[in-house]
Amino acid sequence: MRITGHMLIGQGSVSGTAGAFKALSPALAADIEPAFGGAAPADVDQACRLAASGFARYRETTPETRASFLEAIATGIEGLGDDLIERAMAETALPRARLEGERARTAGQLRLFAGVVRAGHWHGATLDTPLPDRTPLPRPDLRRRNVPLGPVAIFGASNFPLAFSVAGGDTASALAAGCPVVVKAHPAHPGTSELVGRVIQAAVAEYGLPEGTFSLLFGVGNDVGQALVGHPAIRAVGFTGSRAGGLALLRQAMARPLPIPVYAEMSSVNPVLLLPHALVDRAEGIAREFVDSLVMGVGQFCTNPGLVIALEGDDCDRFEAEAGRIVQGKPAGTMLTPGIGRAYAAGVAHLRAHEAVRSVATGESSSGACAATAHLFATDAASFLAFPELGDEIFGPCSLIVRCRSAADMAAVLDGLEGQLTATLQMAPADEALAAELLPRLEDRAGRILVNGFPTGVEVSHAMVHGGPFPATSDARSTSVGSAAIERFLRPVCYQNFPSSLMPAALADFNPLALDRHVDGSLSPPSRRD
Amino acid sequence: MRITGHMLIGQGSVSGTAGAFKALSPALAADIEPAFGGAAPADVDQACRLAASGFARYRETTPETRASFLEAIATGIEGLGDDLIERAMAETALPRARLEGERARTAGQLRLFAGVVRAGHWHGATLDTPLPDRTPLPRPDLRRRNVPLGPVAIFGASNFPLAFSVAGGDTASALAAGCPVVVKAHPAHPGTSELVGRVIQAAVAEYGLPEGTFSLLFGVGNDVGQALVGHPAIRAVGFTGSRAGGLALLRQAMARPLPIPVYAEMSSVNPVLLLPHALVDRAEGIAREFVDSLVMGVGQFCTNPGLVIALEGDDCDRFEAEAGRIVQGKPAGTMLTPGIGRAYAAGVAHLRAHEAVRSVATGESSSGACAATAHLFATDAASFLAFPELGDEIFGPCSLIVRCRSAADMAAVLDGLEGQLTATLQMAPADEALAAELLPRLEDRAGRILVNGFPTGVEVSHAMVHGGPFPATSDARSTSVGSAAIERFLRPVCYQNFPSSLMPAALADFNPLALDRHVDGSLSPPSRRD
Repeated sequence: MRITGHMLIGQGSVSGTAGAFKALSPALAADIEPAFGGAAPADVDQACRLAASGFARYRETTPETRASFLEAIATGIEGLGDDLIERAMAETALPRARLEGERARTAGQLRLFAGVVRAGHWHGATLDTPLPDRTPLPRPDLRRRNVPLGPVAIFGASNFPLAFSVAGGDTASALAAGCPVVVKAHPAHPGTSELVGRVIQAAVAEYGLPEGTFSLLFGVGNDVGQALVGHPAIRAVGFTGSRAGGLALLRQAMARPLPIPVYAEMSSVNPVLLLPHALVDRAEGIAREFVDSLVMGVGQFCTNPGLVIALEGDDCDRFEAEAGRIVQGKPAGTMLTPGIGRAYAAGVAHLRAHEAVRSVATGESSSGACAATAHLFATDAASFLAFPELGDEIFGPCSLIVRCRSAADMAAVLDGLEGQLTATLQMAPADEALAAELLPRLEDRAGRILVNGFPTGVEVSHAMVHGGPFPATSDARSTSVGSAAIERFLRPVCYQNFPSSLMPAALADFNPLALDRHVDGSLSPPSRRD
Repeated sequence: MRITGHMLIGQGSVSGTAGAFKALSPALAADIEPAFGGAAPADVDQACRLAASGFARYRETTPETRASFLEAIATGIEGLGDDLIERAMAETALPRARLEGERARTAGQLRLFAGVVRAGHWHGATLDTPLPDRTPLPRPDLRRRNVPLGPVAIFGASNFPLAFSVAGGDTASALAAGCPVVVKAHPAHPGTSELVGRVIQAAVAEYGLPEGTFSLLFGVGNDVGQALVGHPAIRAVGFTGSRAGGLALLRQAMARPLPIPVYAEMSSVNPVLLLPHALVDRAEGIAREFVDSLVMGVGQFCTNPGLVIALEGDDCDRFEAEAGRIVQGKPAGTMLTPGIGRAYAAGVAHLRAHEAVRSVATGESSSGACAATAHLFATDAASFLAFPELGDEIFGPCSLIVRCRSAADMAAVLDGLEGQLTATLQMAPADEALAAELLPRLEDRAGRILVNGFPTGVEVSHAMVHGGPFPATSDARSTSVGSAAIERFLRPVCYQNFPSSLMPAALADFNPLALDRHVDGSLSPPSRRD
């Protein structure tokens, strides 16, 4: 498939006129053809208006149609073959195996949501039996289900050009919920975005869906995103990126005449707690797995282990020495963009110059705007508490060990942390009392808690939570990975005394969709219903 | 029980020093003893710190303990007997029957949430079976449940001194979720608030709960509320009141270093659509029921029918004539506070003076700061669309009929409306095609849709939605009435590869809490589990 540099507005292919840009090869520091044109305000408005006008019909599509549509997108992405992988490799410097894995995850996500749409738990179907003879007042017939919010604006992420971009988790869950989607492509991988966008555009046509079901806009800078979030047709926002970017969108969305929910995934250092007996047993083994997790994908994961919290002593020293030894041997990597490379270098320089931080180890270095060297630093609990900025995320292969004198120190360090996507316990059976004591603090601060694993590698499944208290995300009540992500784009509606002719199928007598429904507060499977 | 005028901070009884005030009898325009002292910043801080320190233990209470605690509050409120009813009558001018009914609703809500806590759907227990042999990577053991957000600030509402006040729906659902509560009492009914607060305080002691589980603060003006919403220990806000008040809290909560969710119920005109065949059949009957709903409780309900949308013509004329005739005979009522009375008078005066509005009927009048006369006005669709302020809520027994020339006019009027708590269809079977055409617009704008009823009278049940798009509420994804209200104060946490010794009971092997759980995407009732 040829990459044209055009935006996709409904079924149209539109050459943007608001500034031209090209993708940059981070490895070669060279532009990649063709040029992409940015969206003018009229383009944003057209995409949003199409989405709004298409919503009425898209929301009424049957679960089977929506599921098949999502599966067609998955198949279409696979059908792009090596064109997609090679373009993504050129634009991101991510290796082939990673991108092939990410493509499989992306297709798997779309198919997972097809299954979610068919299974129907997302309807939230809930019925109260009417009590016509109740005194002093009868109870009416009340039935509740979830309906889609409306058009969703989605921002592609730089670090997942497939799985959190044009047809990524946000798009899959919004389309599954019945919401049209307007994607603002990340300017670091516009060609990858166009290829995937054309697959969605074709699937929209194939299934006879309203053309506003999907649009793809380009733009460098903040103008397009701000116009999108400010557009009255947009009813929710999905974003993965920087803390500053997410916060700006959140504030803008709240200041609208009609405030809308923003699901921004922003910033997390993913603390890893090394409990004492685990260190006695496995200091070197933990160090090896830790560094593997730290440098994977040049550290460019939201779940990268950027903070290690351990009790000081001989075992902690063994961990630190082994982790340092391994880091020193790690080759430099190529980051996604020069901007990410600069931010990483600045974060590392800040730690290196910090009076309370010492350098444990530095990986191999390389030249180039996007080159990144692995770093391991250490500090003590008192200093970490005295300098809260030491808890800020440095996006890349850099981590900080916080050495604690006592379990109380570890608890205090946890109490000082902001919200996190993940928290990890490395523990032995003899650490269980301490782990149980720390667990409520971890539950209070993180969306996912791991035992004896590392946080990189996020399973796309039903029980996954990829979310967490601020600033990990802007809304800790949700997840952006896994089947529960669909709930972000739904809201409940109650139907009181509806005649059967108007009743939505999910709530109808005789349960035609064969859903699990809550009846009078108890779950009622389809077999013993009505 | 003697009313002392003291705040309840944990187990303490504290005389507030930041300004004294007394309750006002709206009927007598006279102060009621005793004086109440407002909370100083140190009082707010103490209540919030107690809540934060009590959270760790309160969240770990068993479902049975929390359920019994809620039931003890219900029984305690009933045990206050006539002391409570008489104080509430004096402070609100609401009649005995209404307050006795509201007391029953309040106790019923607490018992409903006791049942919700025991039934356990709120855990959201979800398990993914590990796949240790999967390639290229094994799937870990992933289990998800909901945990409480933390201390919740709750603002008592003026119009429900029991059901949406100190032990009202917000408090019941937050306590059920495992969240400590700090209530800011509404200054219009401080004595009622103290009586109920002492019941909760005693129940906290009786069940050996942390004293920070509940506190009750007083204050006139915005200082106490702002200090509460700005306190770092507070993790969510429940509010029922004015649009300006709710918006101010929402903006403050979003500007915090740690933004928190605000559940503000603010403003709704609750459109009632009169479809043509229903008017042919029942114009006069609809008019009678409509006016009953309009003047109930002096119109001081969030679900008061403040807007009627009808096709013009003879049948509409019959409806208008009959409704006007009945309104003219309605006696004046006494509103809750002089402030509400002034706001109502101003809203009525604005409509009366509006060039595009004519007065249909005026009820009987009376003197006094809190006296309110019923009003019925009319306009046409074109004027309604030209003057958006005609869609603003006027809190009280006042409604506006919008006469439409066509079904397209009706749709355009709906399209121009902001978000609503409710929307109502008065329809006959022959109206079904029109109703079906309008329904998606209603779903998009309202939390509850009624057929052939009136929106006042909100059932407290499982399928209820008392919520809706902005400005009806600040978060359309939630309800403040009914069992789903508990979800507002929960967030999901995922447990990866947890040993059984650390696993929360809701997720443990062999399902010790006998919950309905989702396993690999399907519902698994307790009987066929593990």
